[in-house]
Amino acid sequence: MKCRKCGEKASVNMRQHKLALCKEHYLQWLPEQTERFIEKYRMFGRNERILVAVSGGKDSLSLWDVLTRLGYQADGLYLGLGIDGGIGYSEESHRLTETFASDRGLNLLVVDIEKEYGQPIPVLSQITHRGHGKPCSVCGLAKRHEMNRIARDRGYDVLATGHNLDDEAAVLFGNTLTWAGEYLLRQGPVLPAAEGLARKVKPLCRFYEREMTAYALLRGIDYIYEECPFAEGSTSIYYKEILNQLETARPGAKLTFYLRFLEARRAGLFVDQGQVMAQLHPCGKCGQPTSAPGLCTFCRMLEKAAGPVPA
Amino acid sequence: MKCRKCGEKASVNMRQHKLALCKEHYLQWLPEQTERFIEKYRMFGRNERILVAVSGGKDSLSLWDVLTRLGYQADGLYLGLGIDGGIGYSEESHRLTETFASDRGLNLLVVDIEKEYGQPIPVLSQITHRGHGKPCSVCGLAKRHEMNRIARDRGYDVLATGHNLDDEAAVLFGNTLTWAGEYLLRQGPVLPAAEGLARKVKPLCRFYEREMTAYALLRGIDYIYEECPFAEGSTSIYYKEILNQLETARPGAKLTFYLRFLEARRAGLFVDQGQVMAQLHPCGKCGQPTSAPGLCTFCRMLEKAAGPVPA
Repeated sequence: MKCRKCGEKASVNMRQHKLALCKEHYLQWLPEQTERFIEKYRMFGRNERILVAVSGGKDSLSLWDVLTRLGYQADGLYLGLGIDGGIGYSEESHRLTETFASDRGLNLLVVDIEKEYGQPIPVLSQITHRGHGKPCSVCGLAKRHEMNRIARDRGYDVLATGHNLDDEAAVLFGNTLTWAGEYLLRQGPVLPAAEGLARKVKPLCRFYEREMTAYALLRGIDYIYEECPFAEGSTSIYYKEILNQLETARPGAKLTFYLRFLEARRAGLFVDQGQVMAQLHPCGKCGQPTSAPGLCTFCRMLEKAAGPVPA
Repeated sequence: MKCRKCGEKASVNMRQHKLALCKEHYLQWLPEQTERFIEKYRMFGRNERILVAVSGGKDSLSLWDVLTRLGYQADGLYLGLGIDGGIGYSEESHRLTETFASDRGLNLLVVDIEKEYGQPIPVLSQITHRGHGKPCSVCGLAKRHEMNRIARDRGYDVLATGHNLDDEAAVLFGNTLTWAGEYLLRQGPVLPAAEGLARKVKPLCRFYEREMTAYALLRGIDYIYEECPFAEGSTSIYYKEILNQLETARPGAKLTFYLRFLEARRAGLFVDQGQVMAQLHPCGKCGQPTSAPGLCTFCRMLEKAAGPVPA
């Protein structure tokens, strides 16, 4: 297999694009494509301040790498979740993220959940009994809350996450299996800002997971190889396996599933009943918009974690 | 496992309904449920004349059995497709259908494609080069055309087919993977009549394939066990396998996927752009409604099969 651009030996072959590239041209191609997606979906401009949520994994570190190479103003945000899982998961991912940032002279914000709220994620999950014995529900809740809080408090225009096509297709697949209308109406490369909510963008949403792995490896980014120890057996991994089967049978199936969805929605397949955003009000404690009555779900979770309030 | 109704040994266990039944109560339950679906989706009434498309398989013969037991006026339509596949597929399915009808004193209409149009389905497919070497595309086209023609010419109010949940979920899955909007807007238990098109209904659309197999076996219906020899390797079988995996992991997943889709559509998730039916006009040859310019696809296929017309 030869590189389509220079005829040298190809490093990456993308069947769904009928495109093979050598290392040099792949490292050029992926940022160019990212730029194209940023413009196509009007994610942000060069004068905007971007906060990249970085986990120490291949996707988010590559995203930060690509955005800074493209000349965007992108700072990183690392959230310390306090997950050990026998492999020092959070500690190691924090170390790799710090090294990445300092090697490149980038600005990294670090927020530690335990320091901020008294307990790490797994303990918050245990004492609040949320998530059927797994901390993933509390973790997702806390990450969304904290990312939005920091973006708002520090005056960032936009929050960027490293979700790749496999992530997005798996979420879409899950929402489609149950026809979760309110989610189908909102999922996409850009979630516009609303009162108290930062704009959220996913510049990598059209890259396959293996393309991101190839980028991180060829670029020499040192990232955490392990998945989060709690991810094993998760529904999203199960959906990814199913989608990989479909992809193997028909190269491009995953991309088609995601892109045709975006096209169909843009062409007006769905009726936006406009109820989701209309019913939001600010949380009485943190001020973030919520559809829950009274406090937002995150603040209620924290209240539950703090135990009964003396009368 | 005991029958929920009488405590005797259960014959059929339906995990997704948390319901186990003995032979006697299963044979009572399935027609009762069918009646419920006929009413819920307003498929037809007792004064209407129903034409059941029967193939000799478990689903369509069971449907005919159930409808006549429920007291509906249902005649059968058998289409002779001329498929041999080394097992005399069409001949055997015709024989079983005739036996089923005569044993019960039911009225069976038989239309043979070769007698009617000069060639059996596999030959029509070969000479018209439709369907990438497989006759399935021509077969579907011919069946839809003939079922509608007979229903219209013989004055039936409604055409009933034996599609079960596995069939419907697989079609929905395929249409969802590519977000085929016009099909998503139309798929359902009832396709209303339109100018020149009979109403189409699927009374078995909420029964799993294995429930239909159980019904046919317990009722002692003699049906053709073989799948159509051309079905092997088909996309719909592949989608059924994927859905069976999801079902194994989460009993009820298939039913949820189909029912939530129907609910979401009824609740107004999709915008009906009303373009599909609006652009139909009668075929210049057979008079059936078509969206194709000039003749309908079936008549054009026949013209192609007849060869070049002398100038």
